[in-house]
Amino acid sequence: MSEETIDDIMDATYRALCEHGYAELTMQDIAAESTKSKGTLHYHFDGKRELLEAFLEHLIEQFEARTETVPGETPAERLHAFVDELLSSADDDSATAFRTAMLEIKAQSPYDEAYQERLAEFDRRLRDRIADFVADGVAAGEFHEDIDPEATGEFLVTVFHGAQTRAAAVDRSPERTKAYVHDYIDEALRADDGGNADVDVDEPTAASGQEGSR
Amino acid sequence: MSEETIDDIMDATYRALCEHGYAELTMQDIAAESTKSKGTLHYHFDGKRELLEAFLEHLIEQFEARTETVPGETPAERLHAFVDELLSSADDDSATAFRTAMLEIKAQSPYDEAYQERLAEFDRRLRDRIADFVADGVAAGEFHEDIDPEATGEFLVTVFHGAQTRAAAVDRSPERTKAYVHDYIDEALRADDGGNADVDVDEPTAASGQEGSR
Repeated sequence: MSEETIDDIMDATYRALCEHGYAELTMQDIAAESTKSKGTLHYHFDGKRELLEAFLEHLIEQFEARTETVPGETPAERLHAFVDELLSSADDDSATAFRTAMLEIKAQSPYDEAYQERLAEFDRRLRDRIADFVADGVAAGEFHEDIDPEATGEFLVTVFHGAQTRAAAVDRSPERTKAYVHDYIDEALRADDGGNADVDVDEPTAASGQEGSR
Repeated sequence: MSEETIDDIMDATYRALCEHGYAELTMQDIAAESTKSKGTLHYHFDGKRELLEAFLEHLIEQFEARTETVPGETPAERLHAFVDELLSSADDDSATAFRTAMLEIKAQSPYDEAYQERLAEFDRRLRDRIADFVADGVAAGEFHEDIDPEATGEFLVTVFHGAQTRAAAVDRSPERTKAYVHDYIDEALRADDGGNADVDVDEPTAASGQEGSR
């Protein structure tokens, strides 16, 4: 399958998911959004599930390409920029519709090992990206030395899932979550202006050393 | 409908959701778990949707009853206890199955105004409960005076949804999230040891004595 064909089908899948949601989606719906015929789709993919597995992989690749370089002079700035990308709060109809479709796919995941594998892979990559920013920030002295990069990555991935779920399920924009996470980074993670008021930054002691370490 | 009948049907709905998930669930499945007949169910509820609306209301009431009084000497201790209840990490099969069913219902919510209303109501109540604990903690000097109770409530509700979604969709136990949130409360919210280093905390307060309480 040529790159162009893949892109065409994946773009069509995105539009069809926004239009029809996940549960009702058919190969015909996707073909209708594509320049390819339903026959061509079936030639490349056994069915909707196989196509959506490929779509999930495509989403991961797309996200990684989009965030390969994030702007920022320092690790903290790059983490802020990454959070902006992750909690992008586009409130237009297609963003809302797509979040709904993704939530349906997540809800389907316990019944579908292939979906679950892809979602777990995305989850891991997000966590690792965040953990890298945090580790870089700790190494640069920008974040507090006691911060656990991996645990912070885990936590922020949970926050990301929560923001997506609430946006779809109870119509809460991720905007406030994004603002809160930005404050969290500046206040709880930063070595200079937050996180551990009792820690004397000049001479970290063993006792203070354990405080922020999670 | 007698209290007893309601409880019987609601318990049956819980078991049937764990057994069959949401999408495949039928009134017959619920009747099979109940002492009532399918006819009785249909007498009280027009169909699956109406029954599940009542079930969501029942869940809210049940949660409120269970958490009406949470243990703890201070607002911070009560917030910790509430978080324990909220992110209860029972990993047994029925807890896992129920989380999956709830995620399906959340994913259905954008298509179903009545579900969305119930979920939004639960969301609001959770946020308000948390905001109350935080406001009490701020008033008692236990939490930092700059903390916004309502924004903190919003954020922790997002974390709760995220933990539930990840548990169901990518099989991540809420256990780590729970531990992180406990630390977050102790480190970012507490007036004595965290959150806002830019505020001068020159006198250790009584709250420092509670440090080991978690």
